[in-house]
Amino acid sequence: MMAPSAMPSLSFWFELASTYSYLTAVRIESEAARRGVVVEYRPFLLGPIFKDQGWSTSPFNIYEAKGRYMWRDIERTAERLGLPWRRPSVFPRNGLHGARLAVVAAEAGFAGRLVPELYRASFERDEDISSPQVLADILRDLGQDPEARLAEAGADRVKRALREHTDQARALGIFGSPSFVARGELYWGNDRLDEALTAAAEAPRGDGGSCGFPNDF
Amino acid sequence: MMAPSAMPSLSFWFELASTYSYLTAVRIESEAARRGVVVEYRPFLLGPIFKDQGWSTSPFNIYEAKGRYMWRDIERTAERLGLPWRRPSVFPRNGLHGARLAVVAAEAGFAGRLVPELYRASFERDEDISSPQVLADILRDLGQDPEARLAEAGADRVKRALREHTDQARALGIFGSPSFVARGELYWGNDRLDEALTAAAEAPRGDGGSCGFPNDF
Repeated sequence: MMAPSAMPSLSFWFELASTYSYLTAVRIESEAARRGVVVEYRPFLLGPIFKDQGWSTSPFNIYEAKGRYMWRDIERTAERLGLPWRRPSVFPRNGLHGARLAVVAAEAGFAGRLVPELYRASFERDEDISSPQVLADILRDLGQDPEARLAEAGADRVKRALREHTDQARALGIFGSPSFVARGELYWGNDRLDEALTAAAEAPRGDGGSCGFPNDF
Repeated sequence: MMAPSAMPSLSFWFELASTYSYLTAVRIESEAARRGVVVEYRPFLLGPIFKDQGWSTSPFNIYEAKGRYMWRDIERTAERLGLPWRRPSVFPRNGLHGARLAVVAAEAGFAGRLVPELYRASFERDEDISSPQVLADILRDLGQDPEARLAEAGADRVKRALREHTDQARALGIFGSPSFVARGELYWGNDRLDEALTAAAEAPRGDGGSCGFPNDF
């Protein structure tokens, strides 16, 4: 097996409130591993990007037919993928604290275990992932020190890092979640996970997408 | 082989200006035939439905990042499907006359041959399908009488039928193109063609989706 740094990689850009991102987050690690691809976790906030478009909430709430369709489409897709989806009682759910925690986890190398758990809490158990208690329980289950990690997540440095991620997402042309960047190409949506991973896996060694933030699409 | 009326069916709702619908229109007949599904052609206009949302043009023109992504995503998907896509010089292109002609073709039983040709003219040859000359050429190639068919397409009855299709689309919760209805379920997007056809093909005989306009989703 290659060292992770020599393996092809894919950036996974996600907003924790996003329903379609749940379908991706709970299977991206195994799907990527099958193809020898390393996942780089990039939490960001869709709120500011939606605001740029003049939206004060999710377009699924603004455009009724689109929203109605999404809830049914997610249900069908979860069934097809064998995932225990449950429609959350609040949508969109505030993902700010979870996203900051994901920044910490990405730096400390446990995002691949934390991020799916955040989505499971929200979209399988209808838990409020803006609650420190819910986040602490998840951290404890992962063998992390809840108090220390939550304190880190609240640090100015981490707040700034999340804002920078959101700015980078905007600069990459990201407008929804999940989004992927592989070999300088942007892919949007759970429906594009396979295509993005295939592109990442085909990357010649040394062009693994860990080259920063490509902008040639 | 079953008589067409006894075969499962799928309704294909399409707006001729829609880029993603090109990817569907040029392959839906062969994909459906493989599964023993009959395609029912339902041309409609997205303009009035977009207007309901406060949009005066395609959202791909209104939301820049989304539009930029769409053009690239279409290019990649066409390549993956082996389709000779060419970005049109005008977008969205007026599909009113083509849609009326598609209503005529659906009634007369040649929509399965006409509709892909309309999309090919627009998205492979960059031809203006609002021009009577372009439509006449397509009709002639299909062995139809251009003058007679274009006169039919301009009849009040056909104009009304297209308006009714658009109203039915709205009532079905359709908000984009291509859309499909199979077994009372709505599916949206070229990405859902396979899933919709699979659902249609699984329909028990007599529940073929030719039951009108289901509204239980």
